[in-house]
Amino acid sequence: MDGVILTSLKQIHNQKGDVFHAMKKSDNGFDGFGEAYFSTINKNDIKGWKKHTEMTLNLVVPVGEIEFVIFDDVVNDFLNVRLSQNNYHRLTVRPNLWMAFKGIGDNNMLLNIASIEHDPKESVNLELDEIAYEW
Amino acid sequence: MDGVILTSLKQIHNQKGDVFHAMKKSDNGFDGFGEAYFSTINKNDIKGWKKHTEMTLNLVVPVGEIEFVIFDDVVNDFLNVRLSQNNYHRLTVRPNLWMAFKGIGDNNMLLNIASIEHDPKESVNLELDEIAYEW
Repeated sequence: MDGVILTSLKQIHNQKGDVFHAMKKSDNGFDGFGEAYFSTINKNDIKGWKKHTEMTLNLVVPVGEIEFVIFDDVVNDFLNVRLSQNNYHRLTVRPNLWMAFKGIGDNNMLLNIASIEHDPKESVNLELDEIAYEW
Repeated sequence: MDGVILTSLKQIHNQKGDVFHAMKKSDNGFDGFGEAYFSTINKNDIKGWKKHTEMTLNLVVPVGEIEFVIFDDVVNDFLNVRLSQNNYHRLTVRPNLWMAFKGIGDNNMLLNIASIEHDPKESVNLELDEIAYEW
């Protein structure tokens, strides 16, 4: 899907604890640093839909498992990606795509490394049932 | 301690899951974005000592509880900070300070938003017993 990049990330295992890469400024999909925040999502709950008009999202799931659904309303195309420590990738979502996400595990947390700081004026929201998707 | 900033961070509670702030580019302690990575540490294990000569660390603990100890070898001063979701702060550590950290909870994870990309040439390591500290 145009505007979406899925990048495999390195996990470095160590006896005392592991290191999980998230993002380097030289990585594909890095459109600048504006803000980093965590979002948790309860099992079976869904947050969305939201479309950013300026922000590039870079999403990593260090805890649990989260199902992301991206919807391109220009070509009417859906993309579904599940991320977790066992399927450890970074999901880059460029502006003008709709996104929603669902908690799959018992405890689920994403990190978003966003290209700009939070600005309510650059995003639009729809209720879950306003975009038809079989969750 | 010079070169250390402890900043309270916002937690936004929501029925479906929470949002935990980590860092904005306009925040105090932001010295540029080089790389973001997670590090886990087992209960009672200690990683360290390490001193960076160029990197500013910005440390947040979204999972578990981690005890950080910072040592300034110029003035022979120690600083001890425990971070967790219940004591949710960002710990900024500027270059030329020694740091080690210990896992306190059953599962512990930190996010480091580092000002430069990983470069083994800009950090030095000491064994745990080479800096006397009562863990």
